[in-house]
Amino acid sequence: MNAEILCVGTELLLGDIVNTNAAYLSRELAALGIGCYYQSVVGDNAQRLRESVSLAFSRADMVITTGGLGPTYDDITKEVVAEYFGLEMELHQPSLDHIHDIFTKIGRPCTKNNEKQAYLPKGATVLDNERGTAPGIAIEAGGKVAVMLPGPPSEMKAMFEGKVKPFLQAKTDRVLRSHTIHLFGVGESSVESQLHDAMVERTNPTIAPYAKMGEVQLRVTASAKDEAEAETLIQPVIDEITALFPDNVYGVDVENLQTALARRLFEKEMTIAIAESCTGGMIAARLTEIPGISKSLAGGVVSYSDESKMKLLGVSEDTLSAHGAVSPETALEMAKGVKEKLGVQVGLSVTGIAGPDGGTPEKPVGLCYIACVGSWGEEVSEMRLSRGMRDEREFIRNYTCLNAMNMALKLI
Amino acid sequence: MNAEILCVGTELLLGDIVNTNAAYLSRELAALGIGCYYQSVVGDNAQRLRESVSLAFSRADMVITTGGLGPTYDDITKEVVAEYFGLEMELHQPSLDHIHDIFTKIGRPCTKNNEKQAYLPKGATVLDNERGTAPGIAIEAGGKVAVMLPGPPSEMKAMFEGKVKPFLQAKTDRVLRSHTIHLFGVGESSVESQLHDAMVERTNPTIAPYAKMGEVQLRVTASAKDEAEAETLIQPVIDEITALFPDNVYGVDVENLQTALARRLFEKEMTIAIAESCTGGMIAARLTEIPGISKSLAGGVVSYSDESKMKLLGVSEDTLSAHGAVSPETALEMAKGVKEKLGVQVGLSVTGIAGPDGGTPEKPVGLCYIACVGSWGEEVSEMRLSRGMRDEREFIRNYTCLNAMNMALKLI
Repeated sequence: MNAEILCVGTELLLGDIVNTNAAYLSRELAALGIGCYYQSVVGDNAQRLRESVSLAFSRADMVITTGGLGPTYDDITKEVVAEYFGLEMELHQPSLDHIHDIFTKIGRPCTKNNEKQAYLPKGATVLDNERGTAPGIAIEAGGKVAVMLPGPPSEMKAMFEGKVKPFLQAKTDRVLRSHTIHLFGVGESSVESQLHDAMVERTNPTIAPYAKMGEVQLRVTASAKDEAEAETLIQPVIDEITALFPDNVYGVDVENLQTALARRLFEKEMTIAIAESCTGGMIAARLTEIPGISKSLAGGVVSYSDESKMKLLGVSEDTLSAHGAVSPETALEMAKGVKEKLGVQVGLSVTGIAGPDGGTPEKPVGLCYIACVGSWGEEVSEMRLSRGMRDEREFIRNYTCLNAMNMALKLI
Repeated sequence: MNAEILCVGTELLLGDIVNTNAAYLSRELAALGIGCYYQSVVGDNAQRLRESVSLAFSRADMVITTGGLGPTYDDITKEVVAEYFGLEMELHQPSLDHIHDIFTKIGRPCTKNNEKQAYLPKGATVLDNERGTAPGIAIEAGGKVAVMLPGPPSEMKAMFEGKVKPFLQAKTDRVLRSHTIHLFGVGESSVESQLHDAMVERTNPTIAPYAKMGEVQLRVTASAKDEAEAETLIQPVIDEITALFPDNVYGVDVENLQTALARRLFEKEMTIAIAESCTGGMIAARLTEIPGISKSLAGGVVSYSDESKMKLLGVSEDTLSAHGAVSPETALEMAKGVKEKLGVQVGLSVTGIAGPDGGTPEKPVGLCYIACVGSWGEEVSEMRLSRGMRDEREFIRNYTCLNAMNMALKLI
């Protein structure tokens, strides 16, 4: 089976948003062993969408669309695809109830145009939307399959994972199983060059690398007659890669560094508090993405000014005037301060210069210090994160955040 | 003139990279007033690329490609496009010299396959690559224009900015100008139903709505003979929409709520500090995205535990035991506490239940309180943000964050 991805939305054609949906779907299709030779983007225009749908079905067995399922007059994907299959639209009462439920819950009136989302092609498979109002739709007829997904990435991904994957897996007698190995502190090209032969030659399991938010992920995918066989094929590859990158692999199927760190804290039943300067709360914000983190995270301090470092963390005025706010000494006092103030076992801190202003020849933009104090004693690490490019404030903040979480993960 | 974007690369079809090139080019074309009705992605396959090039030229006057200009055997874009125009390839000596120069500078041998990059379609316009080895190419013939750009985004952008923009601006006598109106606290469907007629009937300026991260943006775009005329066309539409949604419009061309709030703080020369419970540092993290925010933001406290609320913010134990951590009383004491501790003019706080656990019938998941204290006195607001769906922790946290920034923006 091969598939084609058709993303619908004028906002994509205007460049208002980046098409992360196409990348996500391509990756997922590749992992399922479904070939994909084309991605297309078309606007909210009936004639052009009609032509794009016909073209896609002339080239592929399956067309996956994103976008155009919403309530507004320019949301026309399902109408156009239904027309291609010669299907009429009809009211799907459970979807309408779901839409009304959502509006009742958020206490806003459900305007009439929202009901449009509950009109679906007759006989289609409805893919419930757990995160929004517009249901997804699957149609199978004449050897062709259409899968229509909502445009907002969070809705789209949840629907693909929960509804489309099982639907596609049911079409094959093989089982596909993937595990993702997470690496931090090594570049994608370096991983790729060390694994090049293994990646090119291996067909089962396959190894697919990709870089994401400052880390590298390697997805190992096996095709087998059942799950047990797939796992038996995958495990040696995971062991081999872990042995190749012992300092970089921080977990398997752990999603991201904050999840890995939270799990480690839960396992060890340890408590932590965070003091942040240049990251301005990003570490705490990411850790608090994890449900239940309140049993490990007491809290944190965003000490953006010198005064806040002194008042909230007890950093001494002498340290600040002798070494400056961006120094190993200040980082250490911040970590110790937040640990003591909140009576926790681990104190983690960062201080640095995110730019674009505030750099000096001795302390340039991108200079950051991370400190982590706990039963192992006191650790401080210096990083120089600037690549000398413009607009790298968010890059520096993100890498500081990742490095800090990685440091804590290694020490705890 | 209309254009089509054709991105070439198997790595895009595998989802290994996100197609930021297409978004960038679309945005730039829109700004130049060049319509773009399709984006396509095709792999490094000669036959499929050939068909895609023909298709694109059957629909558009201009085709802009990215990728496939490099040294390896699967880089075939210029060969396929040259074939479409019936042009032969020939050596372009300045490009060859440039390639040799680069290899000399980085001290690596220039392997034979790198010279392939200097063979270009006969008679084509060469677009120098200041950041890499592969030159770009423009071909004009038979009323069609092909522009071929390298795949790496930094090379592509520099070439578009420096070489392609002047080339294209010389081809048009119209100017396109857009402004984006930002609305918060109103759904996309509600905005659309109130503006439906205006959006459908108006052709100049056009009004395009889209939902982004919990807010609605309306892009108003005018085509005119010069910038002044375009502005004259746009202003009445901005005024009309602002009058229709006086409580929701929070700015024009302000990017997002954190940017609007930061600008307001700068304008009024006011200082702020943030106390966060369920958002765990997100508000501070977003505000600190803004360069220079340190002159307004003193810092913040992530008071995830009762203890941290008492120790870092001075919330009284009585308040916590009488009303609970998620209560208007606690929110108010948090805002007052952080304001006093950090000696600022505005204290902003949030406390709530992000879920999935921790809800009760009286205090369900999604219940959040925001408080903002300052020269206007004390304001507290209650929100119920659950839509009764699974995995809505991030939704609740995001909306709490947005509502808090919006409240501060209105009060300051």
